[in-house]
Amino acid sequence: MAGDGSDQRALQYEQTLMYGRYTQELGVYAKEEAARLRESGQRRSRALDLLEYDKGRCAKCRRSGYPYVLEAPAQDFISVCTVRCQKFLISRVGEDWIFLILLGLVMALVSWVVDFCIAICLQAQKWMYGGLDSNVFLQYLAWVTYPVVLITFSAGFTQILAPQAVGSGIPEMKTILRGVVLKEYLTFKTFVAKVIGLTCALGSGMPLGKEGPFVHIASLCAALLSKFMSLFGGIYENESRNIEMLAAACAVGVGCCFAAPIGGVLFSIEVTSTFFAVRNYWRGFFAATFSAFIFRVLAVWNRDEETITALFKTRFRLDFPFDLQELPAFAVIGIASGFGGALFVYLNRLIVQFIRKQKTINKFLMKKRLLYPALVTLLISTLTFPPGFGQFMAGKLTQGESLVTLLDNRTWAKQGIAEEFDYIGNAQAWKHPQVNVFVTLVLFIIMKFWMSALATTIPVPCGAFMPVFVIGAAFGRLVGECMAAWFPDGIHSDESIYPIVPGGYAVVGAAALSGAVTHTVSTAVIVFELTGQISHILPVMIAVILANAVAQSLQPSLYDSIIRIKKLPYLPELGWGHHEKYNIRVEDIMVRDVRYITLNCCYRDLHSVLMLGHLKTLALVESAESMILLGSIERAQLQSLLSQQLSRSRRMEYIRERAAAEKKCPSDVSNSDSEDGRQRASQEVRFQISTEESTFSPTRPASQKPLKPALKRPSVMERPTKLPTSPQDHSGIALKSLFCSSPDVEALEDDGDVEDDMTLREIAEWEERQLDEQVDFNNCKIDPAPFQLVERTSLHKTHTIFSLLGLDHAYVTSIGRLIGVVSLKELRKAIEGSVTVKGVKVRPPLASFRDSGTSSSETEATELHKLWDRHRNVSLPGEQPTSESDEKSQ
Amino acid sequence: MAGDGSDQRALQYEQTLMYGRYTQELGVYAKEEAARLRESGQRRSRALDLLEYDKGRCAKCRRSGYPYVLEAPAQDFISVCTVRCQKFLISRVGEDWIFLILLGLVMALVSWVVDFCIAICLQAQKWMYGGLDSNVFLQYLAWVTYPVVLITFSAGFTQILAPQAVGSGIPEMKTILRGVVLKEYLTFKTFVAKVIGLTCALGSGMPLGKEGPFVHIASLCAALLSKFMSLFGGIYENESRNIEMLAAACAVGVGCCFAAPIGGVLFSIEVTSTFFAVRNYWRGFFAATFSAFIFRVLAVWNRDEETITALFKTRFRLDFPFDLQELPAFAVIGIASGFGGALFVYLNRLIVQFIRKQKTINKFLMKKRLLYPALVTLLISTLTFPPGFGQFMAGKLTQGESLVTLLDNRTWAKQGIAEEFDYIGNAQAWKHPQVNVFVTLVLFIIMKFWMSALATTIPVPCGAFMPVFVIGAAFGRLVGECMAAWFPDGIHSDESIYPIVPGGYAVVGAAALSGAVTHTVSTAVIVFELTGQISHILPVMIAVILANAVAQSLQPSLYDSIIRIKKLPYLPELGWGHHEKYNIRVEDIMVRDVRYITLNCCYRDLHSVLMLGHLKTLALVESAESMILLGSIERAQLQSLLSQQLSRSRRMEYIRERAAAEKKCPSDVSNSDSEDGRQRASQEVRFQISTEESTFSPTRPASQKPLKPALKRPSVMERPTKLPTSPQDHSGIALKSLFCSSPDVEALEDDGDVEDDMTLREIAEWEERQLDEQVDFNNCKIDPAPFQLVERTSLHKTHTIFSLLGLDHAYVTSIGRLIGVVSLKELRKAIEGSVTVKGVKVRPPLASFRDSGTSSSETEATELHKLWDRHRNVSLPGEQPTSESDEKSQ
Repeated sequence: MAGDGSDQRALQYEQTLMYGRYTQELGVYAKEEAARLRESGQRRSRALDLLEYDKGRCAKCRRSGYPYVLEAPAQDFISVCTVRCQKFLISRVGEDWIFLILLGLVMALVSWVVDFCIAICLQAQKWMYGGLDSNVFLQYLAWVTYPVVLITFSAGFTQILAPQAVGSGIPEMKTILRGVVLKEYLTFKTFVAKVIGLTCALGSGMPLGKEGPFVHIASLCAALLSKFMSLFGGIYENESRNIEMLAAACAVGVGCCFAAPIGGVLFSIEVTSTFFAVRNYWRGFFAATFSAFIFRVLAVWNRDEETITALFKTRFRLDFPFDLQELPAFAVIGIASGFGGALFVYLNRLIVQFIRKQKTINKFLMKKRLLYPALVTLLISTLTFPPGFGQFMAGKLTQGESLVTLLDNRTWAKQGIAEEFDYIGNAQAWKHPQVNVFVTLVLFIIMKFWMSALATTIPVPCGAFMPVFVIGAAFGRLVGECMAAWFPDGIHSDESIYPIVPGGYAVVGAAALSGAVTHTVSTAVIVFELTGQISHILPVMIAVILANAVAQSLQPSLYDSIIRIKKLPYLPELGWGHHEKYNIRVEDIMVRDVRYITLNCCYRDLHSVLMLGHLKTLALVESAESMILLGSIERAQLQSLLSQQLSRSRRMEYIRERAAAEKKCPSDVSNSDSEDGRQRASQEVRFQISTEESTFSPTRPASQKPLKPALKRPSVMERPTKLPTSPQDHSGIALKSLFCSSPDVEALEDDGDVEDDMTLREIAEWEERQLDEQVDFNNCKIDPAPFQLVERTSLHKTHTIFSLLGLDHAYVTSIGRLIGVVSLKELRKAIEGSVTVKGVKVRPPLASFRDSGTSSSETEATELHKLWDRHRNVSLPGEQPTSESDEKSQ
Repeated sequence: MAGDGSDQRALQYEQTLMYGRYTQELGVYAKEEAARLRESGQRRSRALDLLEYDKGRCAKCRRSGYPYVLEAPAQDFISVCTVRCQKFLISRVGEDWIFLILLGLVMALVSWVVDFCIAICLQAQKWMYGGLDSNVFLQYLAWVTYPVVLITFSAGFTQILAPQAVGSGIPEMKTILRGVVLKEYLTFKTFVAKVIGLTCALGSGMPLGKEGPFVHIASLCAALLSKFMSLFGGIYENESRNIEMLAAACAVGVGCCFAAPIGGVLFSIEVTSTFFAVRNYWRGFFAATFSAFIFRVLAVWNRDEETITALFKTRFRLDFPFDLQELPAFAVIGIASGFGGALFVYLNRLIVQFIRKQKTINKFLMKKRLLYPALVTLLISTLTFPPGFGQFMAGKLTQGESLVTLLDNRTWAKQGIAEEFDYIGNAQAWKHPQVNVFVTLVLFIIMKFWMSALATTIPVPCGAFMPVFVIGAAFGRLVGECMAAWFPDGIHSDESIYPIVPGGYAVVGAAALSGAVTHTVSTAVIVFELTGQISHILPVMIAVILANAVAQSLQPSLYDSIIRIKKLPYLPELGWGHHEKYNIRVEDIMVRDVRYITLNCCYRDLHSVLMLGHLKTLALVESAESMILLGSIERAQLQSLLSQQLSRSRRMEYIRERAAAEKKCPSDVSNSDSEDGRQRASQEVRFQISTEESTFSPTRPASQKPLKPALKRPSVMERPTKLPTSPQDHSGIALKSLFCSSPDVEALEDDGDVEDDMTLREIAEWEERQLDEQVDFNNCKIDPAPFQLVERTSLHKTHTIFSLLGLDHAYVTSIGRLIGVVSLKELRKAIEGSVTVKGVKVRPPLASFRDSGTSSSETEATELHKLWDRHRNVSLPGEQPTSESDEKSQ
């Protein structure tokens, strides 16, 4: 807790190393960081809460036209009209739609610029390659060096500036939207690193995608915009609003990446959320539509396109898109894609784990952190070298070009022979003089498959969606070409001939494979929006659903896999129709040995409880006998209580009092009073700081009272959290064992007016006495309504509640009595146990049922009796007659 | 509470009258019914819970291959192989996907059959009309009589069989999915009434839709299928699973109605849910896709179509769907549709309210309940009579035909003159020799607008989506034709000429107006799936979003409007960006005067509390001083406690004892013992009944123990709820005041062995004594963890929690102390108040802030002190030293 500065620097360094080392500790680390950040965030948000209040009011006043908002003398010279206009504008800035439009606009620009730069990079490579066609070796050098340099730069740049920018970003966004605070994931540095790193990575021509990173970039954009807008508006600091905006931003990310607003919204929902608030729906649609619109308008203005159309437009015939009898082929594509998708996720994880496990490789790679990206790039670009092996797998084409050719509505393998290939330049790449087009396609699929799985492990900002999409399209095209070869005149038995459209198969394959890898259905919608045609809706839907069914039963989604690899805090989904989950109850999985503190405990108990475990919150019960749950207290609160009790200032006080007592009778009360005053003062100061930025309304005689914001559900800290590490306790002995790492030197010796003339033994004695005192919870923030469950709550319901409310733990109570606690850990274990039918589920489902049948009612009864008896004893004299008459009448 | 049978019959009758009378009480009634049903449902579900357990186990055993499941001697002759096969099949039936496939299949068939019948009905009308073209009067009679007869039959049939089938069904489904149980809304009767009523209503050619009813039909289907499947599988009785299945069913309803699986899923989510579980997503997609697929395959098999394509296929050009400069026109369509949609909702509500208010009309209509539908139908069909006014508004065309012609990709008003109209038969209807096509369109829009608003108030099963969709298409076509007339060669400035496609405008208009009326964005997706073209995605999205923005700021959605008209229990949405909601706290809206009972209260207190209010649940606190919330008890539980205390059997017992006491000393305990035994017996009986249907596994020595299921969150009743109305209390005096309506005559006089020789005065005295006894909560079911909020919880968060968890009320606590209660009512008021900036929001947002700053900490402290002091007094001798040392050290 102490030494925040140096600690953080160390951690920062560690984090920098993270990807190079492929360390396992990211998850643990992220959790710690999250906790730390949340604490400081709460401290900040408390201040901002105050700020928010004022601003909210001010915005109101402004809108209602009060003239007292002239903010500073600097505005004195501006005419009233301008002020009013400005006021109106500023008040409008607070509206959601302004924010969403700005977000959409910025993201569309970013997306377009990134695309533009990538296109230039890819063209440059082609130009270099084409210009050197006299010498194959030079050509090879150029072909290989260019991506290696770009990837190495991207990796290095990202590592140095913001290592959080590495990877897709969707797993992290999923975690953030679940309520976990991940440090540094939403900063400007990360934004810059992600955008530039992504541009370079994709410009290298590696099989990488931009979808995942764009989700992250959009979220970064939203977070930064939020911060920027909070300079004008009022409500930009509200946490739940920010989460809502982040969810919308994810939709914008996908939407402006593919110009697919609907698919973007749906994909982002499926990928990032467990429960989705329908009232957020319009936000996503609004921002994503605007963003997609601007993105495509930019293309029109740049004369790339004549008007707004789809990104990868197809031209399949409308009147007879496919025959009913072709459906089995589509189903086959779906099922095969399901297996392929699961294999891809498995392969990706295998590569990461293999590199982690190999100690020698690992050590070597740790030293030269940029070597791994360079080696992988070298390998992949060597294999795609067009005059080399690349000629058998259309290595010449960029990802986009391959996709366009694969979605072509003409048949390549007419009558089984690859001919008539002269009409489009790019499609030529698939034709090889010696080799069949089928062989080319098969090689392309196989090579790209492992290349993509490998490339996505490079520590640069990159996604895997687009590569998988292309592979799926190639697979679909392969099946389609086969079908076209088998049925040259189409399947239809009637007089009219409808030849088979292999491009339609490619569309189906693309949707199915990307759906299988990401475990989403909305790839179907993305495909429609990307191709601008919806004629194949039923085949696509069937294939996507089948692919999902297969993939989901074999492997987690790519994003969940990454979450597990990175050990981010996650809650697994309940799988498909595992009925036993309806039969597991909370009492089967809860921890019965709850750490708690009682209302009348002494500081010694506090000390021992704090020493024992590392739980972040502790239950507060009325007494050890009644076990009535009163609330929960955060660990830090207790630490601050304890450290205050044993603080140097109190010891000084004691010495002063002892000295005074030697003269006259002791005054006991002064202690708590002065403490109160001190706290009040600190609050006032904090309040004033926080309102510096806001404009003050004179109607309010503010900051005169001690403004102690009352209890809030996610219990926030009233007391400045620095207390435990504050200099006050630097000489405490008992505390040393707790806060053993407190080398905070910059101690304010402001209590120096009284000499610290106690010996160590005296101090120890004094502390012993202090520890025997009863704890005074008055100045302590208690969360008075921690989430409670009942023993009989089913696992299914518990999961729902945990994921709905983003809980970390919940207490299990029985008529007010605390009987257990369930945390994410137990829940996760139970779910995974129940899925694999092993692990936690040691008790058969009926066990709990039998137990509750025989015991629970009795224990309830006895407990109630206890309470009741106790009560009868306490009951006031006025109540006595009642119980007497009770006895009489019985 | 008593006289359930006759009461229900009366209510049934009342309900039958409901629509004829346009009574206001449906909402109130629905609530009461819901409460009643929930109670009996819980009684049933308790039994089924047991059942479920057994079945779950059995299914397991079966799967693991234990041979002891031979269910009856009837199966003895079946070979082992068959049994195994059967076992496997039965165990598979439990899988979700089987259920979803069945649901999809059934709904597709229903949809197709309904469509087929509607088509036949409409053809019959045309045939009659065409056959009588010699005599205009006869023609008119045929044209008018036919729909009047059909609508009257539909209305009468629905009223008689199941009045719940009337209307759209989406508002009711929204309420049901929110967790409210609406009686009789999901029964087989309703299913039959809805399907037949809908077919007749739509067959009449009135401007009515089938979407809303199909959502209801699909839900009915799911509920019935669930019941049917529970004969085989195990988990079909789980409540949360049923809700999940109902949500999927809504998607199926829309999906198979329009052959729009994606749009169906999204539309059903937007319309029925507040929070959507993403893990349900695949269910909807799976079932809706399957359903849409079968629906279209049926069309192919029926030779209506050559292959699977869209329902209202369009053939717009793909390469240049629209020009950028046309976007303002699309935006205008969107904004105008927004106003139009709001007007439609307003008009619809106005008509209902007008008819309700007009006493004379109302009385007359009440007497002749079928007159209103007949009159409305007569009016509408008279106006559409083709040789009459109908010639100016394409009255000849059915709804589907109009839509097809409106979406045509050819321009009608080329060069401003309506000509070249001979190519399609139907499009001819829009052409009038004297009148411009613009006039026809305008007349069509205006007439259909009020006609649709009027027609949807007819008490038949009908929706408003399709009529609105057609009107929107007509409006879009109108704008498109205007554009085409103004820019005959298209707007594009380049050399290439791309004429304007008015059909594209029609698509945009349809999506925008239906989106505005229903407040959904997903109509855009439905439009794409209906037309089979996605080329106009950006104009459609822009128009839909603008229409939503306008409509949502003016009126509630049509479904919310109906919810309000019917006074169903609902929770309004938080509107767009009303920031003040982040500043209202629970303490601003909560009711501070909470009804509670204490743990040591006597029966008299119970009696008075029950007499005072009509709350369904009461808070149980430890004592009036501490106010520590221990749980909540249902009213019925308390009533049963009270009635048991004053029961005849206890009085008999007393008499018996008194008689015995006259001989020897009294034995007090026998009473409670025998009671316990009785209860135990009744439970055992219930258990055996419930497992009759299930197959018993011999591993379990079941039904020997008193199986008392432990506490569950939605606290269920342990005690048979019939107790309050049971004959035991028919002679109680004090209870008379509570259950004054208990003319239950069929009293079982099984206690008749002891003569009831007490006089009335003696009974009164005895009851007075009984009332003074302390309540024994042992046999009472307490919900030990009612949902708790904190004073500072924001309105926004409260709304989220209420809608997420489907709460009815939540207690507000402060460190375990009960300080208030918030129910749906308060929340609703607060939201509506904050939206209109009047009403409940009497305290300024900052007031609560100031209060909490000054008071909350102090009151907390004092309350804690109280608890603490009290504790110190009770503390056991062993604890004494601690407090002594406390005093010493201070």
